[in-house]
Amino acid sequence: MPSAVHAPAVRPPHPVGQLSTVVGSQGLFDLAARLTELERWIGGELRDFERDLATVPRGVRAVQAAAHHLLDLGGKHLRPMCVALAAKVGAGFGDRARQLAVAVELVHTATLLHDDVVDLAATRRGEPTARTIYGNAASIFAGDWLLVDALRRIRGTGYGDLLDEMLAIIEEMILAESLQLERRGQVGGDVADYFRVAEGKTAALFRWAMRAGARAGECSPEVARGLERFGLELGVGFQIVDDCLDFAGDAAVTGKALYTDLREGKLTYPILLGLERDPSLEALVAEAIARADAPAGEQIAQHRAIAERIHGSGALAEARRAASERIARAVAALAVVPEGAGKAALTTVAEATATREK
Amino acid sequence: MPSAVHAPAVRPPHPVGQLSTVVGSQGLFDLAARLTELERWIGGELRDFERDLATVPRGVRAVQAAAHHLLDLGGKHLRPMCVALAAKVGAGFGDRARQLAVAVELVHTATLLHDDVVDLAATRRGEPTARTIYGNAASIFAGDWLLVDALRRIRGTGYGDLLDEMLAIIEEMILAESLQLERRGQVGGDVADYFRVAEGKTAALFRWAMRAGARAGECSPEVARGLERFGLELGVGFQIVDDCLDFAGDAAVTGKALYTDLREGKLTYPILLGLERDPSLEALVAEAIARADAPAGEQIAQHRAIAERIHGSGALAEARRAASERIARAVAALAVVPEGAGKAALTTVAEATATREK
Repeated sequence: MPSAVHAPAVRPPHPVGQLSTVVGSQGLFDLAARLTELERWIGGELRDFERDLATVPRGVRAVQAAAHHLLDLGGKHLRPMCVALAAKVGAGFGDRARQLAVAVELVHTATLLHDDVVDLAATRRGEPTARTIYGNAASIFAGDWLLVDALRRIRGTGYGDLLDEMLAIIEEMILAESLQLERRGQVGGDVADYFRVAEGKTAALFRWAMRAGARAGECSPEVARGLERFGLELGVGFQIVDDCLDFAGDAAVTGKALYTDLREGKLTYPILLGLERDPSLEALVAEAIARADAPAGEQIAQHRAIAERIHGSGALAEARRAASERIARAVAALAVVPEGAGKAALTTVAEATATREK
Repeated sequence: MPSAVHAPAVRPPHPVGQLSTVVGSQGLFDLAARLTELERWIGGELRDFERDLATVPRGVRAVQAAAHHLLDLGGKHLRPMCVALAAKVGAGFGDRARQLAVAVELVHTATLLHDDVVDLAATRRGEPTARTIYGNAASIFAGDWLLVDALRRIRGTGYGDLLDEMLAIIEEMILAESLQLERRGQVGGDVADYFRVAEGKTAALFRWAMRAGARAGECSPEVARGLERFGLELGVGFQIVDDCLDFAGDAAVTGKALYTDLREGKLTYPILLGLERDPSLEALVAEAIARADAPAGEQIAQHRAIAERIHGSGALAEARRAASERIARAVAALAVVPEGAGKAALTTVAEATATREK
């Protein structure tokens, strides 16, 4: 185990900028222009958020180094952006809203640290996972540590209802992870279970982010409900896109290896759709799962073959359509939100999520 | 992974009864008689606590089954007993105190579920660990789940200060676990670090248990401080006895394999004292740690030889004396507590801890 070191804080490129580059390169110029607008609208707040995120104590322990290893790699900061945007729909992104934004990013990071141990993942955000550098144990404790830090920050804001809701959501996330574990490797999984997992594991935290921003921004109950609904639908859409990128993404862009879901026996939405459309895939997928412990080099040809069949069956396109539909529902939930820059910004984020490549 | 099942609730023998049997068999008749008195004093409250503990939802998920696997094995319930006794020093063990007692047991159980993954432990309380039955992943998530349940219960009591203190203590526990991880396998460890780990990993939760009981029992600030001090000293004493039992305990009684600390490269207090008293032990311990991955059968002779030298050097007796001294300090901290059955009961628990065999 390496000793705990004070790694220099690597400031990632700005998250809005990241989205913008990707989309611009796709030739979606209208969306790109709107992302530039988004950057003007929310960039200052996100920089304030990043300044607060940097206040998570570095300390001298290996768990703290493990936590900061992942935090320093930045990520998209999409959940904090949701807090900021919801707050700006209301009275603005003040001190307490910023603490809530930091908290949601810490909870998200904590789940990644635990997930990487559960999945024995080697890379994340284009770098070795914390567990490969500091060990599984440090990665588990690092997740616990960030979770506690997040809860203390929420508690510090004085919003008791948000603390209760976060505790309920963490439970929801754990039960969804458990369901995913239990279904792992079972060919012929259930689409309803897939959505149960996506809502619990991913969308619940987006929902909380929107609720937290609305609360700190003192939005009306009706607007707050609309924003929460936006978070839920956006989260499910985001998860489906994530699953598609595992088959069709560019590893150099996503920072993650391809076909990891298949390797981990996770029957994601494109796989489930592929199995429905092309029943002969079943034997292939079952064999791939059975050989999950084989060296990666031996598996890659098989995984590529499955990916091509899923692509060829139209399942990948259908999954992308399902994601777009969810994101359209997210935008529709904004009907109760007064017209303005805030609503426009949320719409832009949703549309960028539908087309994201990382 | 086995599917989540509703295991029948195995009610363990009563914790006070467990202590009593062990001590009685040692011929400590006076203490045995006082333990019978303790059972009369606190037995009803502990049964109420057990009834509440049984309300932790069983659910259908593997994480819940993993959590209940360990909860159903019972354990000593020493931390909840601390809550109950501190509360009875004051106004009594009411509904809120009972919730706090359940919470402290859940936090303790959560740490065991994570520790067993970190240590790759095979048995706990005489049974296979949850991780060997449900897998490491389910055991990690089960710990997370119990932690969240505990925090929700504390929050439900309305004692905001106890919630803040518990969050601070969980952080303390994590940082102590991290220090232990970093020191693991380093022969020639530091006694000061040992006590730092024991205070953070073990004693902090005993301290919280006493504080929580005092708070719910509306004790005066002075009495509450004395009770907290009792918890801290008792916790350190308890940990030293635990370390000694790893060398000299009876595996059939403790439910744990012998020499696990050595196997896991943890330089506990008896080992540190042994190294001080018999420098030639250093090479032997270093070799044992280096061979930690060898089959258990090949290691056992070496571990036994080390245990005998530690015993022969007088280090084990010295460690037991250090534990007794801590426990004497715990009893001394009760000076501010009014005379009565509550104080007598705490004294009995402390003395039973010093002589415990499991």
